[in-house]
Amino acid sequence: MVERRKPIPVEDAVKKVMNFSRTGLIEEVDINQCYGRFLAEDLIADHDVPPFNRSPYDGFAIRSIDTKDANLEHQVEFEVIDEIGAGFVSDKRVGSFQAVRIMTGAQMPVDCDAVVMLELTKEYKRNGSTFMSIKRSFQSGDNISFQGEDTSKGTTLVKKGTFINPGVKALLATFGYHKVKVAKKPVVGIYATGTELLDVEEALVPGKIRNSNSHMIFAQIERAGGIPKYLGKLPDDFELCYTSIKKAVEEVDLFLTTGGVSVGDYDYLPAIYEKLGAEVLFNKIAMRPGSVTTVAQLGGKLLFGLSGNPSACYVGFELYVRPIIRKALFSPNPHLVKVIAELGEDFKKPNPFTRFVRSRLAFHEGKVMVSPSGVDKSNIVSSIATANALMVLPGGTRGYQKGDMVDIFLLEEQEGSTWSWA
Amino acid sequence: MVERRKPIPVEDAVKKVMNFSRTGLIEEVDINQCYGRFLAEDLIADHDVPPFNRSPYDGFAIRSIDTKDANLEHQVEFEVIDEIGAGFVSDKRVGSFQAVRIMTGAQMPVDCDAVVMLELTKEYKRNGSTFMSIKRSFQSGDNISFQGEDTSKGTTLVKKGTFINPGVKALLATFGYHKVKVAKKPVVGIYATGTELLDVEEALVPGKIRNSNSHMIFAQIERAGGIPKYLGKLPDDFELCYTSIKKAVEEVDLFLTTGGVSVGDYDYLPAIYEKLGAEVLFNKIAMRPGSVTTVAQLGGKLLFGLSGNPSACYVGFELYVRPIIRKALFSPNPHLVKVIAELGEDFKKPNPFTRFVRSRLAFHEGKVMVSPSGVDKSNIVSSIATANALMVLPGGTRGYQKGDMVDIFLLEEQEGSTWSWA
Repeated sequence: MVERRKPIPVEDAVKKVMNFSRTGLIEEVDINQCYGRFLAEDLIADHDVPPFNRSPYDGFAIRSIDTKDANLEHQVEFEVIDEIGAGFVSDKRVGSFQAVRIMTGAQMPVDCDAVVMLELTKEYKRNGSTFMSIKRSFQSGDNISFQGEDTSKGTTLVKKGTFINPGVKALLATFGYHKVKVAKKPVVGIYATGTELLDVEEALVPGKIRNSNSHMIFAQIERAGGIPKYLGKLPDDFELCYTSIKKAVEEVDLFLTTGGVSVGDYDYLPAIYEKLGAEVLFNKIAMRPGSVTTVAQLGGKLLFGLSGNPSACYVGFELYVRPIIRKALFSPNPHLVKVIAELGEDFKKPNPFTRFVRSRLAFHEGKVMVSPSGVDKSNIVSSIATANALMVLPGGTRGYQKGDMVDIFLLEEQEGSTWSWA
Repeated sequence: MVERRKPIPVEDAVKKVMNFSRTGLIEEVDINQCYGRFLAEDLIADHDVPPFNRSPYDGFAIRSIDTKDANLEHQVEFEVIDEIGAGFVSDKRVGSFQAVRIMTGAQMPVDCDAVVMLELTKEYKRNGSTFMSIKRSFQSGDNISFQGEDTSKGTTLVKKGTFINPGVKALLATFGYHKVKVAKKPVVGIYATGTELLDVEEALVPGKIRNSNSHMIFAQIERAGGIPKYLGKLPDDFELCYTSIKKAVEEVDLFLTTGGVSVGDYDYLPAIYEKLGAEVLFNKIAMRPGSVTTVAQLGGKLLFGLSGNPSACYVGFELYVRPIIRKALFSPNPHLVKVIAELGEDFKKPNPFTRFVRSRLAFHEGKVMVSPSGVDKSNIVSSIATANALMVLPGGTRGYQKGDMVDIFLLEEQEGSTWSWA
């Protein structure tokens, strides 16, 4: 049976899907397992930074009052009574015209209120004691990093839902998060459909091609932050298909199929959705490629039917599945970031529907440039491999020219966007 | 002993380090473990794409010669003698005015040389047989994707040393790489130095701070593509330090320390390098932060002495350690990519040395914009966390103004650059 399908705008399709997004679960990992995960709680300063008044330089801690008469004609001498490295605290009391040799990062002695940098002093020994002299005066507070001046205790430094990069991890360490609460990765089940599909390790035979989509999607799920679970190829038998899918949907957080959503005769999916009692949110979108992308929901759980065409499958994943995964990771910016770029070459194809073109972003003299990554036949195959952006060309146009400004989505950017649609 | 140190230009320091770069080893992983790894061999097409002549549309395979008299006034009728879905091959011979119903992706029957799209035909039944008729003529080759037209067997599609993204993985699957040869990740040993350092799980005590650098570096190593091996804090005892480092250097591919490279009194590293017989390549670089970054080599193996200052440590890693890791991963582009951006705000600090400023890249109306990520006190602590770029401000300038064009390095970009220096 060939169904009638009514295409809906891309923006509406994304909205319909996002209605069923769920925020995820939390798990705790060791700090050295947290890189690349998403924070499940705000990162809060558990102490002031600096945690104590400290010296930002190598030098001498002194009482500023003792320097008031120092000048080029009159040098003032201090007895050096102690020496403190970073990590040590002096227990000596510092009196008039006494000083403490202090290293970068070390805590200020309680009696001192200024630091004189090493290069402004002259050091010497006399009668077994160490002295230093200076030729200028200092104010109270000179060359001290004061407790809390960078960050005060209790400040929220990084928000829940942030991707943990090396710098965020440095903050986690600084503030004592040796266990880190991160978002649990959602498990995404994948079934491939299509009797023409061979496994990667199989030799080619007439009429068949190797299954590349489920492997590609597997990596897209990893890039988005989920755990891919490849379930195999759907059997070519309705009842077996139905029970396989029913079981799979129960075991995963998100479920997706590649292929089997075109209007071909061998497509069981609509009937399976119906038998499962799933509500089809849409089965045609006003976009190229990927117009046959189908999404259904069953008890609030999403079932994605991505196209069997590799480019359509790729684009469908990034537009509709990725934001659901990112939402489960608490990200406030689940969508791909959209930026404006200058088209580096003509793109003559007219667009009845919005077109998403696999593209390469480049930078030139401060400008963002973009070109399709697969313009001629010879690089169609590798156009997804070399793409780092999707060019978004609105429908109803007669093609674009070199120099036109166009919207592009960035595929390898981690921060994302709150909403990328009009 | 306070050594005299002669600063060398950043470019020279990078060159000196790169002289000791080594290409790495190869290991084989299952295709579903390969995302994010680096290819250790070229990816070559093991078959033509398409692998056979196939139909790009749903429709009917015909002999074009039978259509030569078809036009709007004269429709030509074909008997539909078979039906082939993707993955199937028709064994029927197709004679005059016969057609085969064909699905997208299916292999062309041997006798046919054109495809008529479904929507251009009228299909009907008569006397138990199926017929279809058309109202226009077709040329031989119309609507056929020919074997090898996208890629011919033997073509190199992706070069050794390429980061495996989802699209590269799709190609690996397409061409039968169920086991993938990838670069073995180099093991990078990390020792933290500094008596002021507490472990992350320890409570703060006067004068001490938590060790954040080694955790940050751990993640930077992961981002660069290596395996971090945290070895702990160096003991405060020369002999123990020496034997610990000697043992560590033997066990890892690269060795690094954070802290202990300043001119402070508690710094054992120069003496340890000497006792090990390591050659110090440089111990001062004309850059801020990170001027005290020290690199030595021992039997061709690199020992990096990064600063204990978090920003200096971060920058030192990205400039000197990252390219060594990427080279071990066979990358032809081991360095950070440098692009030109417009400065979004004044940066008044004069630069005696080249300065690397933790910054945020942003896009605005097709332009690349950049601003420091930690301009005021309150965000100094999190400036590494929010940085996605390093602004490169050459030495000898009196500061920069909003609107100036500046060079920036991208920190989260995977493709890299062959050489980023003048």
